[in-house]
Amino acid sequence: MSSAETLSEFALIERFFRPLSAESAFLRCGIGDDCAVLAPAVGEELLLSVDTLVESVHFPEHYPAEALARRALAVCVSDLAAAGASPRAFTLTLTAPQLDEVWLAGFSATLAAEAARYGMALAGGDTTRGPLCITLQVMGVAPRGAALLRSGAKLGDRIYVSGTLGDARAALAVLDVNEPDADQQQWLRRYHQPEPRLALGQALRGIASAAIDISDGLAADLGHILRCSGVGATVRLASLPLSAALAGHPSALDYALSGGDDYELCFTAPPQHAAAIAALAETLQLPLSYIGDIAAEPGLRCIDAQGGDYCPAAGYQHF
Amino acid sequence: MSSAETLSEFALIERFFRPLSAESAFLRCGIGDDCAVLAPAVGEELLLSVDTLVESVHFPEHYPAEALARRALAVCVSDLAAAGASPRAFTLTLTAPQLDEVWLAGFSATLAAEAARYGMALAGGDTTRGPLCITLQVMGVAPRGAALLRSGAKLGDRIYVSGTLGDARAALAVLDVNEPDADQQQWLRRYHQPEPRLALGQALRGIASAAIDISDGLAADLGHILRCSGVGATVRLASLPLSAALAGHPSALDYALSGGDDYELCFTAPPQHAAAIAALAETLQLPLSYIGDIAAEPGLRCIDAQGGDYCPAAGYQHF
Repeated sequence: MSSAETLSEFALIERFFRPLSAESAFLRCGIGDDCAVLAPAVGEELLLSVDTLVESVHFPEHYPAEALARRALAVCVSDLAAAGASPRAFTLTLTAPQLDEVWLAGFSATLAAEAARYGMALAGGDTTRGPLCITLQVMGVAPRGAALLRSGAKLGDRIYVSGTLGDARAALAVLDVNEPDADQQQWLRRYHQPEPRLALGQALRGIASAAIDISDGLAADLGHILRCSGVGATVRLASLPLSAALAGHPSALDYALSGGDDYELCFTAPPQHAAAIAALAETLQLPLSYIGDIAAEPGLRCIDAQGGDYCPAAGYQHF
Repeated sequence: MSSAETLSEFALIERFFRPLSAESAFLRCGIGDDCAVLAPAVGEELLLSVDTLVESVHFPEHYPAEALARRALAVCVSDLAAAGASPRAFTLTLTAPQLDEVWLAGFSATLAAEAARYGMALAGGDTTRGPLCITLQVMGVAPRGAALLRSGAKLGDRIYVSGTLGDARAALAVLDVNEPDADQQQWLRRYHQPEPRLALGQALRGIASAAIDISDGLAADLGHILRCSGVGATVRLASLPLSAALAGHPSALDYALSGGDDYELCFTAPPQHAAAIAALAETLQLPLSYIGDIAAEPGLRCIDAQGGDYCPAAGYQHF
């Protein structure tokens, strides 16, 4: 973009990002100062999570700006959902080889719309020149002591997952298909437009003993709960929730167990909360599947439909 | 590093970054969960700032890991200093082409030492594969309503800068000199080891009407105060504080006026605080120079030693 070459960082921020930074009782001072000023209410704690997405690693080259904005924010907000937090604000650092006004307009417009949908304002950021890469830090609040952590799972707790698993993993094989069929379209939607389970996470405060979002695969992410809680688990493969679009796929179970990018929640809860969880599934119109149990013996044991042991593939490795 | 190739992200975090994440009354939950949990005390606000540093843009290729850790954290903490905040916590996202254990050991050890010196714990982070780039978000606290902003400068306020200006700019020309002389060594120290003016920033709460740290050059950064405050300024070049090492340099005044990377503070205060500011300079053993005055007419006017107008060079452009 020829005009972009003369657009200063200051002008860029004013034009594309200032509109995302509405001030409020929580965000007392947004972008444009040395620091943002956040004021959680009395009795609230601040929860935060940070993610970096690098071109060619976390998203393909020439990935549309709109899809990148939507997916990056959803992926990051999913961590707030897993902690039971209500989103409030975020920071963005954008590193790009050059300033492309068309790209920036698409990126910032989608980011604005998605942030507004989540109830978040832009608190700060940085723009730098370099290989395309964005870092988002999201911030939310929860009542003091109410955040869902990975470390609370107890022997005898039931293990649940929300929604269905494996679709996003199936999408990886069809990202470049020209005319995807109906099943493939469903997989691709799950990959490109993950939906953070915010209402579920907030509703699970006081119910779940531990929670995590499934970004690297159920086996890997449940493994974090087990390690942080000092327990083990048994998971029944036959109970893993599959979409109708994935159920007939030859790798459906492997994808559900080890595929990442679905951004559903995996959580544990004592058996006495089973009725509350069933009621929650009804209220949210979201399947909450009881897939296994916390066990004393460390490690994750998967049981196939015939009652035999099943060894899951490794989750996503960041390096 | 052959062994590094098999080091998982998890093992890397446990080994190099877990030690930086001591939990406290403020940092209720640090790294290793979906979210960090921060609990500012009643009556405190949370201040935050985020910066990205990209290899070959913000630091040279093969820049030592220790120097990068020290400088990156200082640059980011300088924003907390400018806002009058007390540092508490930070997040780090590290993007690197590969995991090099020697690099990581040096980087994390220096980061740990510097963070401890500032009183900060690691609250969260992300490690990803890609071109070398780090993003730091620093978080601090200040009493509610006490943060120093850019927007408070008033007609008649005096303009001050801390320390001396221009040394870091002079260093840019001698970064590759093999045996720098004593002056050059001083410039290089200022460039590689900036010292955030935390004690000054905190002491200026209730005294300064506006403040900013000088990262892009005095003219550019004072310009932000002027724009945010809706005022103008006159600055006397003869009052700009120069180090003995820079005073004889033919470009000394230009460097002091327009060179970045010094990370001194520029602040404004009404004349009745002049005695308090002089006392503060004495207490902190840090020069605080009265360099000009806030004026009604918008824009920055620089007056040379002969009383004539002087046009400053542009500050650092991020693109």
